[in-house]
Amino acid sequence: MRHFVLAAVALGAVAMPLAAQPADRGAVDRGAVNRIIDEGTNHSQVMQTAQYLSDMIGARLTNSPAMRKAEDWTQSRFRDWGLKNVHKEGFEFGRGWWIERSQVRMTTPRVIELTAIPIAWSPPTNGTISAPVIVAPMSKAEDLDQWRGKLAGKIVLVTRPDEGSEPDRAPFRRYDDADIAKMDEFEQPKYDPEAADRRMKRATFAKQLDAFLKAEGALAYATMSSRDGKLIHGTGYLFASGDSQVMPGFEIAAEDYRRLARLAKVGPAPVVEMTSVVHYDDTDSKAYNIIAEIPGSDAKAGYVMAGAHLDSWVAGDGAADNGAGTAMIMEAARILADMGVRPKRTIRFALWAGEEQGLLGSLAYVEQHLATRGDPNVPEKTGLERYFGWQQRWPIHPRPGYGDLAAYFNIDNGSGKLRGLYAENNPAVVPIFREWLAPFAAMGANHVVMSRTGGTDHVFMQAVGVPGFQFIQDPLDYGSRLHHTNVDTFDHLKAEDMRQGSIVLASLLLDAANADQALPRPPMPTEPVPTDPYAYPDEE
Amino acid sequence: MRHFVLAAVALGAVAMPLAAQPADRGAVDRGAVNRIIDEGTNHSQVMQTAQYLSDMIGARLTNSPAMRKAEDWTQSRFRDWGLKNVHKEGFEFGRGWWIERSQVRMTTPRVIELTAIPIAWSPPTNGTISAPVIVAPMSKAEDLDQWRGKLAGKIVLVTRPDEGSEPDRAPFRRYDDADIAKMDEFEQPKYDPEAADRRMKRATFAKQLDAFLKAEGALAYATMSSRDGKLIHGTGYLFASGDSQVMPGFEIAAEDYRRLARLAKVGPAPVVEMTSVVHYDDTDSKAYNIIAEIPGSDAKAGYVMAGAHLDSWVAGDGAADNGAGTAMIMEAARILADMGVRPKRTIRFALWAGEEQGLLGSLAYVEQHLATRGDPNVPEKTGLERYFGWQQRWPIHPRPGYGDLAAYFNIDNGSGKLRGLYAENNPAVVPIFREWLAPFAAMGANHVVMSRTGGTDHVFMQAVGVPGFQFIQDPLDYGSRLHHTNVDTFDHLKAEDMRQGSIVLASLLLDAANADQALPRPPMPTEPVPTDPYAYPDEE
Repeated sequence: MRHFVLAAVALGAVAMPLAAQPADRGAVDRGAVNRIIDEGTNHSQVMQTAQYLSDMIGARLTNSPAMRKAEDWTQSRFRDWGLKNVHKEGFEFGRGWWIERSQVRMTTPRVIELTAIPIAWSPPTNGTISAPVIVAPMSKAEDLDQWRGKLAGKIVLVTRPDEGSEPDRAPFRRYDDADIAKMDEFEQPKYDPEAADRRMKRATFAKQLDAFLKAEGALAYATMSSRDGKLIHGTGYLFASGDSQVMPGFEIAAEDYRRLARLAKVGPAPVVEMTSVVHYDDTDSKAYNIIAEIPGSDAKAGYVMAGAHLDSWVAGDGAADNGAGTAMIMEAARILADMGVRPKRTIRFALWAGEEQGLLGSLAYVEQHLATRGDPNVPEKTGLERYFGWQQRWPIHPRPGYGDLAAYFNIDNGSGKLRGLYAENNPAVVPIFREWLAPFAAMGANHVVMSRTGGTDHVFMQAVGVPGFQFIQDPLDYGSRLHHTNVDTFDHLKAEDMRQGSIVLASLLLDAANADQALPRPPMPTEPVPTDPYAYPDEE
Repeated sequence: MRHFVLAAVALGAVAMPLAAQPADRGAVDRGAVNRIIDEGTNHSQVMQTAQYLSDMIGARLTNSPAMRKAEDWTQSRFRDWGLKNVHKEGFEFGRGWWIERSQVRMTTPRVIELTAIPIAWSPPTNGTISAPVIVAPMSKAEDLDQWRGKLAGKIVLVTRPDEGSEPDRAPFRRYDDADIAKMDEFEQPKYDPEAADRRMKRATFAKQLDAFLKAEGALAYATMSSRDGKLIHGTGYLFASGDSQVMPGFEIAAEDYRRLARLAKVGPAPVVEMTSVVHYDDTDSKAYNIIAEIPGSDAKAGYVMAGAHLDSWVAGDGAADNGAGTAMIMEAARILADMGVRPKRTIRFALWAGEEQGLLGSLAYVEQHLATRGDPNVPEKTGLERYFGWQQRWPIHPRPGYGDLAAYFNIDNGSGKLRGLYAENNPAVVPIFREWLAPFAAMGANHVVMSRTGGTDHVFMQAVGVPGFQFIQDPLDYGSRLHHTNVDTFDHLKAEDMRQGSIVLASLLLDAANADQALPRPPMPTEPVPTDPYAYPDEE
């Protein structure tokens, strides 16, 4: 009930500095499109950019030494290309972490190398741990008790093993018209505070588990990869300074994990050897967003912005997630800078940090430039709790620059070509986007659908009423095998798609920057009133 | 021309001890089917058998210590179940080999673990090799010269890197009626001696490459996996005693290999560290086929036989290839032994060794029991050369037991359920098989198609005119990701399918063993006469 009561208090207290404005289809410079296409095809650098980020720099876990290199390199590219006001903007994040070496093997009942990766921000093993495994599935606080007294000296397998998968859908695919048509649906928001509570509980479980395993005298733990076929991820969220886990932890490939679990069931527990040489880097606890601009001619007209997250997880090279998006953002910047455009509004390019840990870079941008939320005297949580909790904080306090951001466009769905835009439940923009995308019908990029999307850096802009959008992209094999895995490598990026994406993005940004009027905004969000009485939480 | 000239000499010199016999539909014991189904479902042990082979014993490379365990364990299971004449039959093979530990890492321009596996039968690195890579694609003798003088002190990447794949077909699938209908086609044999020559050249290239790399002072070499997505195989064929390679070699996952190749192209060659602790086992150079029987009541009626290869490659656990087939063969034996059947003909069960190195176990069986080929004074090659060359040896010399084997049934297509039989270009068996398979229409196993299949242990039986057959099996994900890879593990086997397979096989064997007459045989093969004048080789 807490959330609802708070809503009643907060209602009506929210400032709404900008009224919705009429649609504006004007100021499309058709001549620019062909110059953009020439630069983006015959002189494209998008794949060179993506290759440097993926192959040479590689995985860019936020605050890791590789991410620091990427922060420097992307700024220097922006400067080389003539972008203005290139700088980084810091926000408090936590620790850096990187893997020097790791190895996991089963040594009895037979010897075999296992495919595994240290959990991000887990501590090193300090040599090699060798111990029998125990299968002790634990995914919430209530699961812990039954394993008390049973884990000492063990390597604890904490995921409940499943059966092998039967992947009956092509891993690589493109959208046809029917796929896209299904996305064109206005979905009413749901009032579900319980879902938020459940997510918060999950977010705090990693710390509880860590403390429990330590108290029980376990030596290390392992999770099972959520994907078959030796794909591994190594995701972990205990990155805040002073919040690190004490137990070494690994994610083991599903096939190897299930084998351990089966062997433990039918005979003596297999013995596993684990070695991780991993390092924390506490040189600077701040993470940094990278900003670059093409200045506008009208200082009062505000700015439009495009962004992608520069950080990645650590198992692959962060190629599709999100070297691809980063490279397309950077290439659009390069194309427009090379053309010497001087739009009405400033065009800002943003490369976010900390996206993989909860959209933290774009959230920091929102708080630094657009709006804060909730009672400033109630301290915020860190890590995933901050991510899950932020949208439950009321009211919203707009900052002075709130009205300046006219539109935000995000790219974060791999290297598939742009097929159009999600209108994100903002019907007023549909005719405008259709107009802007009209030249790209033959490139397949002229679709505008109503769906609202989540999970990436436009979310917290939407959460404070800024028009933030994401592109429809051909899915390719992003979701099936690349997303967060050890095969997120440059060879799975599609050059033609990424050139197309850079072109469409550059053109759209120019249109948005030159439009007579800013895009129609949604109303400033206020705390939702439950629309379904059955949606009330059952208990206090 | 050599092959053709030889053919003219040999024509007519081949004995044909058994004339084709009329089709025989008789002696089907319908009551037995239901007892088989009861035993094969309510009391099935097929998954326990497959699990022991895959999980506990694991990869069973021919002559490796694990394969020796499997030879002992399978014989002891056969004995436990009451099979008769359980024994092993040796043939000269070569060396055993196994992996204790291996690791491959890139150390510059950044540090990353690579997914890799030592090539089977490659020597150990004796510590860690660290050297820059060079991309030097070599796949045939003519490729070597251009790399002379360039490989000293290098780790040589010998595969030409390709682009990433776009897997646009579901990895897991079952046959529908249309798929099966396409298999029902009689295909005329092709006279293509050049193809055999090309294969022979490929078979000898590994030794030439090894000698070249050694002479050039290379430190090690690596191949690229033929599959995307971190799947690796580690296949290698220099297993003959006295024929081992001297260069350490690894197969590297496609993503990791391509990254090395790209980095080498745009900047200083990356440095790679390679460690393999692998061991040869020369305790016994013989490999062994495992034989077990249910004795027939009529000593003059000969025998029918079912087989699967027990050996596997080394990257996975040999679960689908061919723990699944082995377990189904063993389960059919167990079911029939448990029922106490006493068929007219003996039913022999065979578990082959050396299949993965060229069907060598079943070839040995053919030579020991059925027929030899070619001039006995011309010594045969070893390894892959023997495999590719054997069918080019003329004439065929039947052995005294040639006529005793009435039919051979092979299982080697993963754990997918049996959908029926390939008639293998032997139309005379079609009505007989249809009759025998009729009870299994509701299990989906009543299809009989004409196609001839290859690549496994019925091939050399067919090559001497013995009716050898393979089952149609649902493909599942066998070809897409399990076949020879590091994810060929027990969790990808399908229990219902394997129970079905064991039942159908047991019933079919009983029908074949009790049939009034043996299956119609093809004529004894003689050297083919070219049917297409353009098929002659261009040069001598």
